[in-house]
Amino acid sequence: MTYKAPLKDMLFDIQHLANIDQIAAIPGFEDAGFDTAQAVLEECAKFSEGVLAPLNWEGDKNPSTFKNGVVTTTAGFKDAFKQYAEGGWQGLQHPTEHGGQGLPKLIGASCGEMLNSANLSFALCPMLSDGAIEALLTAGSPEMNAVYLEKLVSGEWTGTMNLTEPQAGSDLAAVRTRAEPQADGSYKVFGTKIYITYGEHDMAENIVHLVLARVSGAPEGVKGISLFVVPKFLVEDGGKIGARNDVHCVSIEHKMGIKASPTAVLQYGDNGGAIGFVVGEENRGLEYMFIMMNAARFAVGVQGIAIAERAYQKAVAFAKDRVQSRPVDGSIKASAPIIHHPDVKRMLMNMRAYIEGCRAMAAVSAAAFDASHHHPDADVRKQNLAFYEFMVPLVKGYSTEMSLEVTSLGVQVHGGMGFIEETGAAQYYRDAKILTIYEGTTAIQANDLVGRKTGRDAGATAKAIAAQIATTESELTEQGSADALAVAERLKEARLAFLDVVEFMTANGRANPNAAYAGSVPYLMLAGNLVSGWQMARALLVAQEQLAAGVETAFMQAKIITARFYADHLLTKAPGMRDSIVAGADSVNALALEAF
Amino acid sequence: MTYKAPLKDMLFDIQHLANIDQIAAIPGFEDAGFDTAQAVLEECAKFSEGVLAPLNWEGDKNPSTFKNGVVTTTAGFKDAFKQYAEGGWQGLQHPTEHGGQGLPKLIGASCGEMLNSANLSFALCPMLSDGAIEALLTAGSPEMNAVYLEKLVSGEWTGTMNLTEPQAGSDLAAVRTRAEPQADGSYKVFGTKIYITYGEHDMAENIVHLVLARVSGAPEGVKGISLFVVPKFLVEDGGKIGARNDVHCVSIEHKMGIKASPTAVLQYGDNGGAIGFVVGEENRGLEYMFIMMNAARFAVGVQGIAIAERAYQKAVAFAKDRVQSRPVDGSIKASAPIIHHPDVKRMLMNMRAYIEGCRAMAAVSAAAFDASHHHPDADVRKQNLAFYEFMVPLVKGYSTEMSLEVTSLGVQVHGGMGFIEETGAAQYYRDAKILTIYEGTTAIQANDLVGRKTGRDAGATAKAIAAQIATTESELTEQGSADALAVAERLKEARLAFLDVVEFMTANGRANPNAAYAGSVPYLMLAGNLVSGWQMARALLVAQEQLAAGVETAFMQAKIITARFYADHLLTKAPGMRDSIVAGADSVNALALEAF
Repeated sequence: MTYKAPLKDMLFDIQHLANIDQIAAIPGFEDAGFDTAQAVLEECAKFSEGVLAPLNWEGDKNPSTFKNGVVTTTAGFKDAFKQYAEGGWQGLQHPTEHGGQGLPKLIGASCGEMLNSANLSFALCPMLSDGAIEALLTAGSPEMNAVYLEKLVSGEWTGTMNLTEPQAGSDLAAVRTRAEPQADGSYKVFGTKIYITYGEHDMAENIVHLVLARVSGAPEGVKGISLFVVPKFLVEDGGKIGARNDVHCVSIEHKMGIKASPTAVLQYGDNGGAIGFVVGEENRGLEYMFIMMNAARFAVGVQGIAIAERAYQKAVAFAKDRVQSRPVDGSIKASAPIIHHPDVKRMLMNMRAYIEGCRAMAAVSAAAFDASHHHPDADVRKQNLAFYEFMVPLVKGYSTEMSLEVTSLGVQVHGGMGFIEETGAAQYYRDAKILTIYEGTTAIQANDLVGRKTGRDAGATAKAIAAQIATTESELTEQGSADALAVAERLKEARLAFLDVVEFMTANGRANPNAAYAGSVPYLMLAGNLVSGWQMARALLVAQEQLAAGVETAFMQAKIITARFYADHLLTKAPGMRDSIVAGADSVNALALEAF
Repeated sequence: MTYKAPLKDMLFDIQHLANIDQIAAIPGFEDAGFDTAQAVLEECAKFSEGVLAPLNWEGDKNPSTFKNGVVTTTAGFKDAFKQYAEGGWQGLQHPTEHGGQGLPKLIGASCGEMLNSANLSFALCPMLSDGAIEALLTAGSPEMNAVYLEKLVSGEWTGTMNLTEPQAGSDLAAVRTRAEPQADGSYKVFGTKIYITYGEHDMAENIVHLVLARVSGAPEGVKGISLFVVPKFLVEDGGKIGARNDVHCVSIEHKMGIKASPTAVLQYGDNGGAIGFVVGEENRGLEYMFIMMNAARFAVGVQGIAIAERAYQKAVAFAKDRVQSRPVDGSIKASAPIIHHPDVKRMLMNMRAYIEGCRAMAAVSAAAFDASHHHPDADVRKQNLAFYEFMVPLVKGYSTEMSLEVTSLGVQVHGGMGFIEETGAAQYYRDAKILTIYEGTTAIQANDLVGRKTGRDAGATAKAIAAQIATTESELTEQGSADALAVAERLKEARLAFLDVVEFMTANGRANPNAAYAGSVPYLMLAGNLVSGWQMARALLVAQEQLAAGVETAFMQAKIITARFYADHLLTKAPGMRDSIVAGADSVNALALEAF
């Protein structure tokens, strides 16, 4: 077994930190309680461990290939995707009225983690379909959805997101792909899109491209961008596959990682125009795309947790197996497995604490998403939406940045063997590096955090979260164990550091944007660190209760130790980050451009 | 030009921080003053930029190949090595009596940086030859040296270091390769060595393997290890190449990076025994190897600086070229090169500050090495040796760990393009990861720092360095500029944090080794951070003087800003690291092994 889903930890978060009972109390989610979560996660674990995980290294060795416009995926991927679709996994979180299972994101997020731990390259395909589904649910007409939505939800077809062009990466205002309205209400689309994940492949009979383009005569900038559906094959009445559309893959990229996932350059309209259909209203494309991107950003954050978990499991297995040198404390008189060495433990504990902290943050955020969409009380929805939206850049930015450190530690634990490709640890290191880039780089997430999520409400949401954290500190103090007290102290220092930074961001966001944005990514990292550490602190409180009740003793003891480690070694970074952000903006911006 | 040697910065360090005038005042180094340094560095820059740098990406695309026992290096490498040898570069730091140029390490280190920036995979070959030369200089008999040394120094032959075996990585006590004494005073060597850099190649007519092995009947553990010369081809009287020796390459590794550098599995003695010659005395092999490893460790630290510099230059070029989005401060009303965005500046400044800090630390350490070997005054030699030996784990550990962060930022600055192999940024990210592993992992460096370098003299050297840092703080305070005062404050906080940790290490090193070694790598990182930051602080003082004198104004202003950035953003990490080390040891060690 190369991957074992961490079901116990996932279910702990779902039950105790994200409170699935409260989600199951929401109308529509009555059947989505803890038992359902457990059953679904167990099934997903089987599929991920048994079908997807064994294909992961295979995909790295034998990536997707491109020849004459055709992309052939790694042997085994097509069949795995068929099983995925037949298992109903694509529809997990999507509405029952379109053929989905209508389960909460809280359950979906854990499944997403497993799929991505098992095989990041594979799991990207369904992730992109999820994005296309979200976009259609948001703005597709009933007629359009009748044609495309169920096929996407069932996994018969897959979806893509076409944003990037050579001159338009983070800056979507620069999109040039154009759409010419036709007499029949359709459009002809012309242009080049790059970095299109699963933009061409052989795993499904049709591909539904969601494409950002400008209608002729539309305003410049982001206000003139519309969203189109451009299917690879046109769809005839009755849903039958029709003529090949004028969208063609002209090459796929040679990438450092996620090699099995074909990253396509797509050419639209070289032979008269690709036929497309506008989604929702013209010129509102970016707005729809952002809805879809928020879902995708959360999902990429989960990918960070997923790849980190896989790297951790591999490192643990190696550290228990590899015998090298005597323990420094003399407790063993011969060479011992390297997990006995304190620095190996330190690396593994770092990995573990990061992963558990980020997993808990993601679970709590997913539950907030569910409540924000489905809770009957408008105030509850609103509060949860504010919380969730604040969390999206943290889940995306912090979890993926931490995955770089964790996968690097994963290689390091292996020593020289980590650098040999056949060992497999290097693949995680290479794969992870895309996560801080796609669906918005960490800097783009940080801009969102500083501008929309902190500036717009003058820090109100940030301060409300800090107030919740202060409550947890009181609970820790009341609990009174040495661990609880130590964690409370570190959490308080980190919270106060965070509040100083929030103050700095709200004061400078508009007045001195260069100063604020000089610290945007450190602010994101500090906030992500704090929130993850807070969830670990909450986990410690739960674990101490459960321990007192005699439940899952070993697991609860481990949780307490890991929470303590998080506070000792990760939360302690917060005050220094505060100093860097609040006192260090000038030195970020001072150097003349020609001096670089 | 894909690489431009940072001559100005190197010469600034050599002149002002490492005080080459003092080195040139040492007998034997009379001709090694600033002018010589400048001339040598300029020549080395030409060679590195013009010959080696263009082969770097080529070597990644078309790595060394293995077929039927023969390794063929990337096209162009053989000729480049010929030029390297003919240019006299291999002998730069080696004694004139063996055909070298006898220049100080202070000059050699800068040349090493350039060669490695230009082409890390290539530069490994001469680096390993340097190691073999060091070992022979240390312990080789005049007869042995007459045969091998000049050929190595001239670059006609190359050298290797054969330490690792499948069961003996960090733990050399487990070495099993055996050597059987023969009647003629030679030995027959039998065993398998792995991870042998340039263990087989086509760039030189002979390869001189330095091999750790056990003489039959030798004591167990490290005290029974001897060092042997085992040439690929035996050498006849008069230095002519003779019969092929019984050492054969059976495979080379498929690695994540440094792909052009062949990493060989060598089989000794499958056909009757490889003929070897003991270096120095039997059973003292590890002692000799450590001398050679200390040189190699310093050199690997320089590789970290080198790869970071290359990544920085590439990122700067991209950031000045790539146009995307308007600056947040509204200073430009259209899309601008991304270097205008504060977060891009932050990433570039981080890279720059790390590199300049580590380069200065390496220069000062190299000068200490020179003084420790050649100064006429024994006390001066002793002081410098203690300083240099303290620095080796910092130069190796800190500079290579920072190179992981810097090469990751390098990819990040490129956004999506960074993940595409053809861009080249990904290669640096992949190449760098070996640096924290080979010649002793960061943990091995940290063990050395905690045990030999801090514990053995009860922190005396560490405290002496802290006292020198306090002097710099006084000078900064006296200087009195806003930058100097801000740097003084951060330096003081970091120094006090360091002293707390030194106290903790000396108190716990023997009494509670699990606690000490739980913090060993963080201690190394804190110490490296402090010393680099200290050198940046010294650089600031020099730059303010030079600025006042009107010398190189733009360079000096940039140095001051970079030093300030270092203090604001990197030194500020120190107090948190102290807290993690001093208060966090228990949570590193607490988790039961079966709970991982």
